[in-house]
Amino acid sequence: MDELYEQLVEQNIVFDGNVIRVENNKVRLPNGKEASREVVYHRGAVCVIAVVDDYMYFVKQFRVAPNETLLEVPAGKIEVDEAPKVTVVKELKEEIGGVCSDVSNVHQFYVSPGFSDELVYLYVAHDVKLEEQALEEDEFLEIEKVHVNDLPALLQSGRVRDAKTIIAIQHVLLNS
Amino acid sequence: MDELYEQLVEQNIVFDGNVIRVENNKVRLPNGKEASREVVYHRGAVCVIAVVDDYMYFVKQFRVAPNETLLEVPAGKIEVDEAPKVTVVKELKEEIGGVCSDVSNVHQFYVSPGFSDELVYLYVAHDVKLEEQALEEDEFLEIEKVHVNDLPALLQSGRVRDAKTIIAIQHVLLNS
Repeated sequence: MDELYEQLVEQNIVFDGNVIRVENNKVRLPNGKEASREVVYHRGAVCVIAVVDDYMYFVKQFRVAPNETLLEVPAGKIEVDEAPKVTVVKELKEEIGGVCSDVSNVHQFYVSPGFSDELVYLYVAHDVKLEEQALEEDEFLEIEKVHVNDLPALLQSGRVRDAKTIIAIQHVLLNS
Repeated sequence: MDELYEQLVEQNIVFDGNVIRVENNKVRLPNGKEASREVVYHRGAVCVIAVVDDYMYFVKQFRVAPNETLLEVPAGKIEVDEAPKVTVVKELKEEIGGVCSDVSNVHQFYVSPGFSDELVYLYVAHDVKLEEQALEEDEFLEIEKVHVNDLPALLQSGRVRDAKTIIAIQHVLLNS
């Protein structure tokens, strides 16, 4: 694989925020030429498949970047020094009030490897029981549940416009 | 859904590159408070499912942001004023030398809606024939094909660490 490698030759941090750090770097290509690479660094996120009594649980949330309210699986950013498994148990409780016996990691994926290192871990939560939602202050979302028999129609409807949520629904359909 | 909406109150462009524009904005939350939102704008991308003689086609490509060589479906950024369908036919030819009778859009999804508006269109290419790869100058990638019967094992192996590619493989498995 070495013949595909691009070597970093110049690093320029252009923005260092709370969620992302943006760099406009130069790399050396396999043919020796230089090229610029705009890169967004992000700590990563988790998301979770929660099925209770044959209903899969989603949250509806307004997203500023696409300027749309999206239907998504429960998810959240990984905090500094936090294990993904800890984040996912926390987000399950916060967003839908779910408590579970355990979680299993089924996939982990870069969501936009062309410019970002954000890695998302997808878990399945086992034996989920529903208690009270425990949203953080300034977090606004609505719960929506969909019967597993209706998931193929949901996928086909085009209502799900979020990559991690499509992966999660497909995973349920392939494993049920 | 209005009760979830966040209104833009202040826009600050912090980086305007060739691929992304980064803003550090302020929004008004549904409860009237203000919050900051780091946003990455991107023109979007396409990717494509190409199956020829029961083999699904992938490309291996070094990605600077995650600092890894990834196995991905053929894909590419949408150019200014380019229809996604035009981009996908072009990328199919460039990256794997594929020509097809038509393409169908099967999903479109935000890959990281928490901070980015990048929308990815997934197509299926029909009646693909393979000719010569037509890579752009300074584009480096290797073709890899996997028999459709081996796709479940590929997914389980953890080798596929790219969201759009997991969606594409699961789509093939759900529709074959």
